[in-house]
Amino acid sequence: MNISKQQIIDAHERIKPSIHNTPVLTSKTLNQISGAEIFFKCENVQKIGAFKIRGGMNAVLSLPEEKRKKGIATHSSGNHAQAIAFAAREVRTKAFIVMPDNSPAVKVDAVRAYGAEIFFCEPNQLARESLLQEVVDRTGAEFIHPYNNYAVITGQATCAKELIEEIPYLDFIITPVGGGGLLSGTLLSAHYYSPSTIVYAGEPEGAADALLSIRNNRIEKAPYVKTIADGLLTTLGDKTFSIIKRYVKDILTVSDEEIINAMRLVYERMKLVVEPSGVVPLAALLNHMEIFRGKKVGVIFSGGNVELRKLGEWFA
Amino acid sequence: MNISKQQIIDAHERIKPSIHNTPVLTSKTLNQISGAEIFFKCENVQKIGAFKIRGGMNAVLSLPEEKRKKGIATHSSGNHAQAIAFAAREVRTKAFIVMPDNSPAVKVDAVRAYGAEIFFCEPNQLARESLLQEVVDRTGAEFIHPYNNYAVITGQATCAKELIEEIPYLDFIITPVGGGGLLSGTLLSAHYYSPSTIVYAGEPEGAADALLSIRNNRIEKAPYVKTIADGLLTTLGDKTFSIIKRYVKDILTVSDEEIINAMRLVYERMKLVVEPSGVVPLAALLNHMEIFRGKKVGVIFSGGNVELRKLGEWFA
Repeated sequence: MNISKQQIIDAHERIKPSIHNTPVLTSKTLNQISGAEIFFKCENVQKIGAFKIRGGMNAVLSLPEEKRKKGIATHSSGNHAQAIAFAAREVRTKAFIVMPDNSPAVKVDAVRAYGAEIFFCEPNQLARESLLQEVVDRTGAEFIHPYNNYAVITGQATCAKELIEEIPYLDFIITPVGGGGLLSGTLLSAHYYSPSTIVYAGEPEGAADALLSIRNNRIEKAPYVKTIADGLLTTLGDKTFSIIKRYVKDILTVSDEEIINAMRLVYERMKLVVEPSGVVPLAALLNHMEIFRGKKVGVIFSGGNVELRKLGEWFA
Repeated sequence: MNISKQQIIDAHERIKPSIHNTPVLTSKTLNQISGAEIFFKCENVQKIGAFKIRGGMNAVLSLPEEKRKKGIATHSSGNHAQAIAFAAREVRTKAFIVMPDNSPAVKVDAVRAYGAEIFFCEPNQLARESLLQEVVDRTGAEFIHPYNNYAVITGQATCAKELIEEIPYLDFIITPVGGGGLLSGTLLSAHYYSPSTIVYAGEPEGAADALLSIRNNRIEKAPYVKTIADGLLTTLGDKTFSIIKRYVKDILTVSDEEIINAMRLVYERMKLVVEPSGVVPLAALLNHMEIFRGKKVGVIFSGGNVELRKLGEWFA
């Protein structure tokens, strides 16, 4: 494996001063509904509102000083953009973020509030990548990929490490899967710290590329893309895929309706704001209760960055 | 004073097995915005989603066995109804709840889920009270008033007791004020446990009866009633008023717009669901930053029971 246990330990020490060791919460109601004993790792109350700060921070802090000082660049319309902007400010360097020009204003504002410079492109992969290349060529900034980067994966691994340290002997852990950074990091921490823990991933039916990739044993695109879980639209990278295909138990898919029902339960019963992508693991558990009944299950609430105006639509 | 320090200690011991010692959270962003150092006591994640369980539980557990076994009765469309239903179930007796027939279905369902018997009346004070009397006459159940009851006030006092035990030397505590149960309990705990702590209450402009009552030194109705903070519509009782007028520093009013802005900050920055009535203390702080700048302030998030379908309206 390309990432060792010691590298995860080092990453955790490196980023600890910049992140929260987020709380692990329980809910009697959700235990009753599911028949499982669930431990929710609340990355929704993490800095920037998502686990992405772990990987972003580790990647930025791992850069040698002479690379770091030229600035950090990335493309993202979501939580990774905030993570890089935050991390760059922490080390007093510049962040250059390429964002699609249809990004929600609230996300653009959040990135700008951390002092990053934003470059808008058309909302497609080609426009993103070519503008990013242009920015990197011009500035000499270091590109940090949102997930297909070992320092990022190692940073994301610290989330499950904290969960396992707080709640040992978990039978299962469930994470969401988008590009696979959190999932592959979780798989590595479970492998090193709790080898008897089985890791599942939850994925939206409307972005089911990871399921197809595992089935076909090669990186695939989703058959179709249509889901409210906007953090999980990306396909796997070669680095994340190689870890995932080796260690993951399976991918459990959920519909948007199941995502909304899970979000409603979390709002009503736990009084927590979790974004659609972030409740996918709970939706997967509730959709496959037969697997988890009577077991101790770690569920990662990966983020809480919701566009508030959408709440009325979802909960109408 | 009619409630001693020892009675608050006894109440706390009595209800501890049935309630959560709720977490005290902080937010760097809200500290930056306000210039104060704020400690949020999160009763939104309390059992039944509100502090009301403290008073309801203490009142029910304080009844002698022969009274308790005939059942508990109350009128409420809100969190007190859930508190009494929950408490009655805990001691294996019946709850009889009079609710206005326009109560939100979600609240009716929650009360029913705890096994209470519900009696619907027309939505006015006279209909409520006469139906309640009828129920009490017929069943012999004990009426527990939502706030004008010393056992209830003593139970509510345990919330500020926990806050002060966790964060000593607070300069201020801010609570909401409706009927005054939480405010008068908080005033007593501050008096006994942290006499240098100054207590303010936040009140909606559209239900400003407590402000008027303090100004005129007698219990007054609000000049007009129109606010989204639906837990704070009631007027003070003689028991709560006598404690409030003696100890409260002042009542700070806030508009519905300020309540919505505070709720938005709490959703976006703290990822917590707090009901409109519950964020009134934070709205009051943000509306009077000059009082609190540079100080340590305890803010009680009193409840989290929100009708989700209203979120879209508020955050449009």
